[in-house]
Amino acid sequence: MIFNVMTLFPEMVENYFQYSILKRAVDSDIIKIQTINPRDYTENKHKKVDDIPYGGGAGMVLMAQPYVDAYESIEKLPKTLTVMLSPQGQPLTDSMVNEFSKFDQIILMCGHYEGFDERIRDIIKPVEVSVGDFVLTGGELPALCLIDSVSRKIEGTLGKIESADEDSFSNGLLEYPHYTRPREYRGLKVPDVLLNGNHKEINEFRQSQSIERTKLRRPDLYEKYKNK
Amino acid sequence: MIFNVMTLFPEMVENYFQYSILKRAVDSDIIKIQTINPRDYTENKHKKVDDIPYGGGAGMVLMAQPYVDAYESIEKLPKTLTVMLSPQGQPLTDSMVNEFSKFDQIILMCGHYEGFDERIRDIIKPVEVSVGDFVLTGGELPALCLIDSVSRKIEGTLGKIESADEDSFSNGLLEYPHYTRPREYRGLKVPDVLLNGNHKEINEFRQSQSIERTKLRRPDLYEKYKNK
Repeated sequence: MIFNVMTLFPEMVENYFQYSILKRAVDSDIIKIQTINPRDYTENKHKKVDDIPYGGGAGMVLMAQPYVDAYESIEKLPKTLTVMLSPQGQPLTDSMVNEFSKFDQIILMCGHYEGFDERIRDIIKPVEVSVGDFVLTGGELPALCLIDSVSRKIEGTLGKIESADEDSFSNGLLEYPHYTRPREYRGLKVPDVLLNGNHKEINEFRQSQSIERTKLRRPDLYEKYKNK
Repeated sequence: MIFNVMTLFPEMVENYFQYSILKRAVDSDIIKIQTINPRDYTENKHKKVDDIPYGGGAGMVLMAQPYVDAYESIEKLPKTLTVMLSPQGQPLTDSMVNEFSKFDQIILMCGHYEGFDERIRDIIKPVEVSVGDFVLTGGELPALCLIDSVSRKIEGTLGKIESADEDSFSNGLLEYPHYTRPREYRGLKVPDVLLNGNHKEINEFRQSQSIERTKLRRPDLYEKYKNK
């Protein structure tokens, strides 16, 4: 999977792939991260990428020309998805992540400061994705969230010891509680059922804990789960 | 505002504050970022922070002792909030961001790999926050999302030229479209109303665009807006 990240701050993005599981995925060629800076595509001599908004108001607006030209310079595979990170997009979910992981290339358009000139949307027609109903300085963190979550679904990214199958949302529920050594810590004990080696009982306990936790914390998800 | 980030990958977090608006906020002492690595608090000689789960299953579980000891070593101000980043938490929203920005200190607990030993929750009793219904390798990106969005609400972070007042969600709606120079790009023109200097008409145009966009893209938000 190739991820092309369009950003004014390439180092902010590249740094994330120097650690942990995603570093391993890059080193094993399971994913490939390429950044492209619209500033390198400006046609004005000051390499300006933004300008004040027509109609007035606070903030700067990202100009169409550098973004569109940068986008068009990217070599595209037949199965390519283009995503604009924006608080106005559809909130990212685990099922979207699953769909996205089937592409061969994802181009991620990060804004910064105020927003994109609307004609960037009109010309490129990206899928717009948000990571939640809050506002960030730029699209870089949401792009990294998308790359991280999608990469986890690609075969080879997670080792045998890790697993995405039991993660929250994979069955529509929040995950059950985990315990590791020691058996007792500051007077708090690991539930007996996890120690008895009876896998049927362990699975039942975990399933009921998942359901209880989802009901309590996320009644919206629980309703969807019940009606599945 | 002090942000203490508990993470096994401090550099992953620190790098984000070397750029753009948040670098400026750090340099001006509006926000202060401190990282703390639970690995430095292990009591075992291999500095192991995780172990296999009781009851079996994939993945490793973060042990209670290093996390709890690291947490207790953090000096706390009277108005301190402790947040665990976890897909099992409440999804972060703009109104939560507003509430969080009133604290003097936020301690952020990032997991990595499979999850926290449940007794970490039992002892520390953090507020649990998620950035959406998808799964990531660790809590670092969600922690950065929270810090970025909260910092934007603190006076002094955004300059005069930026503004949070007209952002998406600040009035319960998605933001209206933006346009900047040139007036025409690849045959696409800036709407006339934005060029006529009539601020009443411009505001009406923008408000109606915000409403239309929200209705189309996020009917859930539009319903809430209507019933306000």
